Amino acid sequence: MDILAFAKGVFEAQRFSKFIGAELTGATPTTAEITLAIRDELKQQHDFVHGGVLSYLADNAITFAGGIALGGNALTSEYKINYVRPAVGETLIARAKVEASGKRQAVCSCAIFVLADGAEKVCAIAQGTVVPAG
Amino acid sequence: MDILAFAKGVFEAQRFSKFIGAELTGATPTTAEITLAIRDELKQQHDFVHGGVLSYLADNAITFAGGIALGGNALTSEYKINYVRPAVGETLIARAKVEASGKRQAVCSCAIFVLADGAEKVCAIAQGTVVPAG
Amino acid sequence: MDILAFAKGVFEAQRFSKFIGAELTGATPTTAEITLAIRDELKQQHDFVHGGVLSYLADNAITFAGGIALGGNALTSEYKINYVRPAVGETLIARAKVEASGKRQAVCSCAIFVLADGAEKVCAIAQGTVVPAG
Amino acid sequence: MDILAFAKGVFEAQRFSKFIGAELTGATPTTAEITLAIRDELKQQHDFVHGGVLSYLADNAITFAGGIALGGNALTSEYKINYVRPAVGETLIARAKVEASGKRQAVCSCAIFVLADGAEKVCAIAQGTVVPAG
Repeated sequence: MDILAFAKGVFEAQRFSKFIGAELTGATPTTAEITLAIRDELKQQHDFVHGGVLSYLADNAITFAGGIALGGNALTSEYKINYVRPAVGETLIARAKVEASGKRQAVCSCAIFVLADGAEKVCAIAQGTVVPAG
Repeated sequence: MDILAFAKGVFEAQRFSKFIGAELTGATPTTAEITLAIRDELKQQHDFVHGGVLSYLADNAITFAGGIALGGNALTSEYKINYVRPAVGETLIARAKVEASGKRQAVCSCAIFVLADGAEKVCAIAQGTVVPAG
Repeated sequence: MDILAFAKGVFEAQRFSKFIGAELTGATPTTAEITLAIRDELKQQHDFVHGGVLSYLADNAITFAGGIALGGNALTSEYKINYVRPAVGETLIARAKVEASGKRQAVCSCAIFVLADGAEKVCAIAQGTVVPAG
Repeated sequence: MDILAFAKGVFEAQRFSKFIGAELTGATPTTAEITLAIRDELKQQHDFVHGGVLSYLADNAITFAGGIALGGNALTSEYKINYVRPAVGETLIARAKVEASGKRQAVCSCAIFVLADGAEKVCAIAQGTVVPAG
């Protein structure tokens, strides 16, 4: 199975991901990467990217990393996120990784980077749980 | 000061909140409420509202509740969210409440409800920290 | 079934709870309460109760509240805790409450209070997930 | 400055750490390690180490890693922990790492391993915030 192609198929069916403008740019048996070009309508009152956008990226990257580990149909049941730097730049990249997985859950971490002037800086860190759907 | 009017002024300056279609519908010295009409572009592949949308609501409701408690310019530094029911219905309502506050932080809880056929059901629960900006 | 008697039976089998000196002081279909007398060996370098003790209380109160909701044999899979005030006083009381429950999980909140000079003050707030064991 | 010696001095002043039997076994500018021999009084009703013990380790390892990054007097303001495997074995080792730090906070991750029959397995994963004290 081509994991990235399979994951992209699911991702393309997420209308909110299209609405927000995100792209699934990586998927392996233990990782997932989502990329999002920063534009004005993603920002808050201080011209930083809104925390809700970073949250979307963390939630969804965790879902895909954990979902692959669990073999397909899965959902994020919970996560936490720490914002560590205002997100200012051209592009956001969320990279999630499976830290531990079994039949019943996959626990994943996720770091979100902002790409500005050619350099990546971490702007949020998350940890969450993915469980089989249904 | 009219707290709701002040908070609405800040909320209106959040381009992402406008883009997603949310409205600040309540603000008191210890609470904030954000309402969002559900539409197709907010959904994921199973036709439920995407977790990222619920996360945005939790993050932002916590920011406003805690920000008011801290006297104005503030930001959410971290939070966690548990999804407890698929969000299916007409409207989402996030209600955040200050649980404890001091000079350096306000810790808030938030429950998100989905309104379907006239009844509210809780669909997510969150807890987070708001700190003074800058 | 006498819920409190049943829960006390489980609690008494927790060697760590005895070692630390805690007592299960309440249990209903949707709540649990654990009480702990503060003594020197529970403190850290500033003479406040160590965060690890508050964490134990949150973890365990959540386990009991959620476990009762799930019908018995259950465990806390994850939680988060915010410390909101140094714990100084005579007694700690952790009160957990089921916020939402189904077959697969119970999501609970917990507030921990310190009793000092006859008044209770909140010193930590937690939220977590309980799942059926095995 | 000898970081490990300095950190051990603080650790030795934590009465709860002595009571529980933990030892600070590592400290660098961006990491801290705490080790704890498993004994019966640290267990719960299923003979696994109690989650409260793992929580203590995560809380405290995060405090030390973040505290060193912040230059000394600091405290954990919040964290979350996921349990990923029953802790059964001889020894627990918590390893915390600074993921991002500034003047106002250090955000740290922590993995807790159980050593059994010569092999280490991860049994819990945590993420939290350390802030300057006072």
